[in-house]
Amino acid sequence: MPSILRRLDSIVAPDPEMGVLAQRRLNELTKPPRSLGRLEDLARDLCLMTGECPPAVGKAVIFTLAGDHGVVTEGVSAYPQVVTYQMVENFLNGGAAVNVLARQVGARVVVADIGIAGLPLDRPGLQQRRVAPGTANLARGPALTRDQVVAAIEVGAALVEEERARGLDLIGTGEMGIGNTTAASAVTAAITGLSAEAVTGRGTGVDDATWRRKVEVVTRGLAVNRPDGADGLDVLAKVGGLEIAGLAGVVLAGAAHRIPIILDGFIAGAAALAAVTLQPEARHYLIAAHRSVEPGHGAILTALGLTPYLDLGMRLGEGTGAALGIGLARAAVAILAEMATFKSAGVSGRA
Amino acid sequence: MPSILRRLDSIVAPDPEMGVLAQRRLNELTKPPRSLGRLEDLARDLCLMTGECPPAVGKAVIFTLAGDHGVVTEGVSAYPQVVTYQMVENFLNGGAAVNVLARQVGARVVVADIGIAGLPLDRPGLQQRRVAPGTANLARGPALTRDQVVAAIEVGAALVEEERARGLDLIGTGEMGIGNTTAASAVTAAITGLSAEAVTGRGTGVDDATWRRKVEVVTRGLAVNRPDGADGLDVLAKVGGLEIAGLAGVVLAGAAHRIPIILDGFIAGAAALAAVTLQPEARHYLIAAHRSVEPGHGAILTALGLTPYLDLGMRLGEGTGAALGIGLARAAVAILAEMATFKSAGVSGRA
Repeated sequence: MPSILRRLDSIVAPDPEMGVLAQRRLNELTKPPRSLGRLEDLARDLCLMTGECPPAVGKAVIFTLAGDHGVVTEGVSAYPQVVTYQMVENFLNGGAAVNVLARQVGARVVVADIGIAGLPLDRPGLQQRRVAPGTANLARGPALTRDQVVAAIEVGAALVEEERARGLDLIGTGEMGIGNTTAASAVTAAITGLSAEAVTGRGTGVDDATWRRKVEVVTRGLAVNRPDGADGLDVLAKVGGLEIAGLAGVVLAGAAHRIPIILDGFIAGAAALAAVTLQPEARHYLIAAHRSVEPGHGAILTALGLTPYLDLGMRLGEGTGAALGIGLARAAVAILAEMATFKSAGVSGRA
Repeated sequence: MPSILRRLDSIVAPDPEMGVLAQRRLNELTKPPRSLGRLEDLARDLCLMTGECPPAVGKAVIFTLAGDHGVVTEGVSAYPQVVTYQMVENFLNGGAAVNVLARQVGARVVVADIGIAGLPLDRPGLQQRRVAPGTANLARGPALTRDQVVAAIEVGAALVEEERARGLDLIGTGEMGIGNTTAASAVTAAITGLSAEAVTGRGTGVDDATWRRKVEVVTRGLAVNRPDGADGLDVLAKVGGLEIAGLAGVVLAGAAHRIPIILDGFIAGAAALAAVTLQPEARHYLIAAHRSVEPGHGAILTALGLTPYLDLGMRLGEGTGAALGIGLARAAVAILAEMATFKSAGVSGRA
C-alpha cells in the first residue's frame, strides 16, 4: 500500500444521497419520525460514510497507540513517565479500562508502541512500531522532525491497512502517553488559534500550580516553535507527539477506505484536527463518541463541526469513550437493520 | 406475596457505607481518580442500591406495560388509539425499537396488557393482566377509580415478583399507550405544582394547534378532578393511566427488593414520581437512563433529584432509553469487576 500522504486525494466526500435514503428508511420504521433523536443521526451518518444502508458494524478495532513526551521534564503531569509503559503492559494483560469497555462491545484493542521512552519493548500482542523513544521537549524546540511525523502517520495508516485485511468495519481511536494532554493542547492552540489557557486542562488531574505551569509550557512551546497552524505536519512535528501523529494516520487511512472513525476524546480530537489540515474531506468520516471534560476538546469539536453523542464527564483516554461510541453505533445500526416498518408490522400511521 | 401497598415500609434507604466502599474501590483501579466520570457514579450507585460491590447485573428485564387512554377522544395524539394494540403485536414479534435495543444488551422484554382498549388480547408471550379496557377521559372526570389504580400497581409489583423468581438483577421500565404523554403531563403538573404549559410537550409529534389543545386538556383535567398532589393514588386515579400506575408498582416492588430501577423517559418518570409520593425512600433505587425531549421530564428529574446519563434527544418510550441505560450499567459494573488495580498491575501512582 503506498504512503497515505501520497494518496490523500483518495479521501473524498461521501454521496449525500445515501444520507437521504437512510433517513427515509428510518422514517418507515415503527416509531414517530425522529423519535430516536441522535441515534437516528448516528445510523444515518454511518450509512453516509460507508455508502451502505445498513452498514456492516460487526468488526470494530480500537487502535491504542502509546508514546512518550519529552515535555514531562517540565513537570506537567500528575503521573511519572514510566506509567506509559506500565499501562501498555496493563493493556496487554487486559486489565485497563479500555480493555474492559472494549470487551463489553466485542471490539478488539490493537496496542502499538509508536514511541515509548526507554528500551524497545517486545511483548506478545504488542505491535512494536516505535519511531523514536519519545519526543523531545516541545517547550525548548521541536518535539519531532518532520520525517518522524511522516513515519508515525504511516505507522497509524499501516495498522489500519493490516486490520482491514482481517475485516474492519469501525475504527475506534485510543492512546496512552504521560504528558500528551500538554502536546494536544499545543496542537489545538496552534491549529485553532485559541490561547493556551483556553485549551489547556487538568489532564490526569493536576493541581492549580501545575495547571498554570502547563499553560505556561504550552505558551512557551508555541512561541519557541512557531508552528504553522495550516500545516498539520508542521504542527505535529513542532508540538505534537508520536501517538498523536499515528492517530492522524489512522484517521486518514480510515477515511480513505470510508471506514467510520469513532473518535475518543481530547488527544484523538487533536490528531483528527491535524489530519483534517492535510485533507479536509477526512472530516466526513469522523464521529465524536463523547465530550471530554478537557476544555480543549470543546474547541476541537467546534472546529471539526462535530456534536458528541455522550457527555459523561470522562477524561481517561485509552479509547474508553470510543468503546462506548462503538456500542452506540451498533445500537443505531441495529435499529436500521432489525426494526419492523409500519407496513411490515401493520401499524397505522399518523391519524 | 402480600400487597406491595401494605409493605411499603420494607422500602428503606440503603446503607451509605457501600457507596463509600465502591468509590474507594474505583479509586484503586488503574486510572486517574474520577476519570471515568459519571460511569463511576453509576457503578457506585449500583453498589449502594444492591448492597453488593460489584453487584450482579446479568439478568435485566424491561417491563413494557401497555394501556389506553380515554383522553384520546379530545384529539391530543398524532396517532390513532389502535396503535397501542398494534405496537403490542409488534413488541411480541420483536420488531419494535425496544426489542432491538434490548437484544443489543441481552435484556428480556416483558410485555403486559394492563389496560388496552377493546377485546382482551390473548397472544403467546403477552402477559394478560388487564385491569380495565383503557381509562375514562381525564378531561371530563376521573380517569380511573382508586381500586383500579391499586389493582394496576399490584399488577406491576406482581410482574416484578414473577421475574424475580427467575432471576432479576436490573429493572428497566417501558410503556406503550397512545395518549399517555397527556396523562403523564397531568400527573407531573399535579405532583410538582407546575403549570400544564410547563410540563406538556409534543408527545409523538403533534402540531402547534394540537399542542395548545393538549395543554388545555391537561389544564381542564386538573381543574375538573382536583387531584391531591401529595397522594400518588389520588393523582393516578384522577389523571393517570393503567400503565403509569403499573410502572409505579414496578418501581415500588423493585425498591422493596433493592433491585436498581433504570427509568426510561417521561412516562416512566411520572410513574416514579407518583410512587415516591407513596414511599419517598423508593427514590434511592432509581436511575435516570436518559433525558427525554419532553419538557415535563426535566421537571420530574429535578423533583426526583436525578441526573440522567444520556441526552440523545430521544422521545420514543417503550423502554428504549432504559435499554441503553442497561448497557451503560453493565459497562459501569464491568469496570468495577474487571479492571486491574494499581497494585495488581504494578502501575505507579501519582508522582
